Amino acid sequence: MENAPATKPHVVILGGGFGGLEAAKKLACEEVRVTVVDRTNYHLFQPLLYQVATAALSPADIAAPIRAVLSKCKNIEVILAEVQAVDAQAKKVRMADGERDYDFLIVATGARHSYFDHPEWEKLAPGLKSLEDAVEIRRRILMAFEQAEKISDEAARRAAMTFVIVGGGPTGVEMAGAIAEIARYTLAKDFRHIDPAQARVILIEGEPRVLAAYPEDLQISAMKQLHDLGVEIRTGVHATNLTEDGLNVGDEYIPSRVKIWAAGNNASYVGHSLGAPIDRVGRVIVNDDLTIPGHPEVQVIGDLANFSHQTGKPLPGVSPVAMQQGRHAARNILAMIEGRKPQRFRYWDKGSMATIGRARAVADLKFIHLNGLPAWLAWLFVHIIFLVGFRNRLAVLFQWGWAYLTFNAGARLITRNFQAEQRPPT
Amino acid sequence: MENAPATKPHVVILGGGFGGLEAAKKLACEEVRVTVVDRTNYHLFQPLLYQVATAALSPADIAAPIRAVLSKCKNIEVILAEVQAVDAQAKKVRMADGERDYDFLIVATGARHSYFDHPEWEKLAPGLKSLEDAVEIRRRILMAFEQAEKISDEAARRAAMTFVIVGGGPTGVEMAGAIAEIARYTLAKDFRHIDPAQARVILIEGEPRVLAAYPEDLQISAMKQLHDLGVEIRTGVHATNLTEDGLNVGDEYIPSRVKIWAAGNNASYVGHSLGAPIDRVGRVIVNDDLTIPGHPEVQVIGDLANFSHQTGKPLPGVSPVAMQQGRHAARNILAMIEGRKPQRFRYWDKGSMATIGRARAVADLKFIHLNGLPAWLAWLFVHIIFLVGFRNRLAVLFQWGWAYLTFNAGARLITRNFQAEQRPPT
Repeated sequence: MENAPATKPHVVILGGGFGGLEAAKKLACEEVRVTVVDRTNYHLFQPLLYQVATAALSPADIAAPIRAVLSKCKNIEVILAEVQAVDAQAKKVRMADGERDYDFLIVATGARHSYFDHPEWEKLAPGLKSLEDAVEIRRRILMAFEQAEKISDEAARRAAMTFVIVGGGPTGVEMAGAIAEIARYTLAKDFRHIDPAQARVILIEGEPRVLAAYPEDLQISAMKQLHDLGVEIRTGVHATNLTEDGLNVGDEYIPSRVKIWAAGNNASYVGHSLGAPIDRVGRVIVNDDLTIPGHPEVQVIGDLANFSHQTGKPLPGVSPVAMQQGRHAARNILAMIEGRKPQRFRYWDKGSMATIGRARAVADLKFIHLNGLPAWLAWLFVHIIFLVGFRNRLAVLFQWGWAYLTFNAGARLITRNFQAEQRPPT
Repeated sequence: MENAPATKPHVVILGGGFGGLEAAKKLACEEVRVTVVDRTNYHLFQPLLYQVATAALSPADIAAPIRAVLSKCKNIEVILAEVQAVDAQAKKVRMADGERDYDFLIVATGARHSYFDHPEWEKLAPGLKSLEDAVEIRRRILMAFEQAEKISDEAARRAAMTFVIVGGGPTGVEMAGAIAEIARYTLAKDFRHIDPAQARVILIEGEPRVLAAYPEDLQISAMKQLHDLGVEIRTGVHATNLTEDGLNVGDEYIPSRVKIWAAGNNASYVGHSLGAPIDRVGRVIVNDDLTIPGHPEVQVIGDLANFSHQTGKPLPGVSPVAMQQGRHAARNILAMIEGRKPQRFRYWDKGSMATIGRARAVADLKFIHLNGLPAWLAWLFVHIIFLVGFRNRLAVLFQWGWAYLTFNAGARLITRNFQAEQRPPT
């Protein structure tokens, strides 16, 4: 693999998430060559990933092929590859099957879940970052009810139908609400030996309230809305001693077969190779213009970046930050090519919102706090608008409309790995 | 797991495919207890599986949860389990996690692909029977273009972009046409270093023409329509010496990374445990009323059954046969409960159709042979009508309408196994 000879500056973007994709769009049809490198062939609309995990949407509804999104301008090429490291001195990116030189680099490889000192918990309590994660969690949730239907032992049946979500941030809140709704409405009539509505959904949060980053009134509202859906909330406690069969929550042991991890992030390992300062969760501490010390040609954005110049605290790992940083990084590159200096970044915070269930949500729009139906409508509107790809918008609108009318989750499939699809002994 | 005490006769149906589902629907709300056992939680609309394999549809579009389809009548329960064997003497079905007694049994566990004496070919050239198969084939097809984009060696690039489909029945014809269309239209603008339209699609058939079961004029028309799409057809030859890198077709060696198997079926292993006569591909040779010798309480239907009483040849393994047999088997059971004898089965053949691409198809409607656009419209109509679940019908109509307008395949995702989703070494 070699770089085609050309005189235009070469921009390499690592990661096709919200930050990387916005940067690429901004550089489309400009006087640069752009290479986008991602280890998947699609851009994933992560805010709706929990809906794949809870069988409301299909993987294809919230993913758009990166090539297709960026196909219009010939100055952009897309490579499906896993980045191993960056050599910032030599201005090279190393991948499993080759390397690329760059003149400018945007690193946007995001974060994975962190299990702190317990990597062995990942299999017991999967997190929710990728489509594969979502399909695996969907499989576990649906299998739990299937197995409970076949179990006659009362205690084992209760353990099969007890779902524990560790972490009360937006993802944890969304998962807890969605599982409670599936159990109470979607699956209500499907079983003969169990009543899915008897399922317990337990949400664990170490802070005193869920949605720690939200204003207090919305935290309280979210907890009330979850409670109305039947979700049990345990705050001020931590999960310990995870096993196949259960976990400890504070002093209490909870038998539970299905556990989901929504606590703690670890930034992508790619950041470590940059030679820049790194914070405690692996994020790269960037300058106020998103560049790294000593390398104005390298910018780090999104979940991988620790940008503390605006509020004194790192900006949150949410898509609006990544998107604004992506556009800013692209503008910085165009400025540097013209001999100007990169500009400092400023985040324009338009607020945040989390959904809990049908007509249940909270929204902090800065000038106003909403909850219940108005917050939910605001959430629907924003998520349809920002969903990448017009086709996806139509598809998701259709699925949501259908689900709203029928309470039916359309993607209730338990699929197995290809490897597992073997014939049993004859 | 125990059977609830009850005096109504207990009907066990093995398999939730076309045959099993029709039987269950016919027995819904009747004076029997029904248990449907399937190893997946969904009914799969197999005639559209090739569209999942070629990224036109999502798995959830062509699958319906069996529980949901059968939830209305309380006399039906559904069990997710893998059947191991039937003990026809003791009237018991054995599963991995328990057994069930039955008064009447309908065996509808279908068929898998047969690799004749070469089981090692399964990994090299996957067949297309399950959703897992389809997602794996989709991954291989899309990955082939991704890899070709990164390869600079001309011969290796050609091998990556050469797709060989072994078997010229309806599935092989549909796959060949769909891959040719993806390459020529859907992916046309996505790559920078390759021209996807240069991909070779080669269809191999041992008989003198494709679609051996169709009338000769439609065979010839299908071959012409495939040819117009750029598909190379090799008839009267067989595939041998499959490896990762290629295969022999007759005397010719064809370098090819992606091979797909659409030749030969082997009936489900469950048939062997019945103690009834078995044909050379594992099908159970049934009486003219679908029962097996000596066991009027056991009926075998669909792809697992060899029913030769009507034409002297076994009926083909297509969904109309399975559905008619499913309904007939249910009627037979209701008759036997009332003390009457099971009736002989008669297949009403309404014809068959295969699609090749956009506005390309053949249809044998018995009273008329169609090809091209009229055949394609007939195909669309029939497949929408028979798709299980009103939601699926709407979803597929939407996807097809969108694809027709934009030539865009909506489900172009390369997804990996959960196990493979590991972080690379840091």
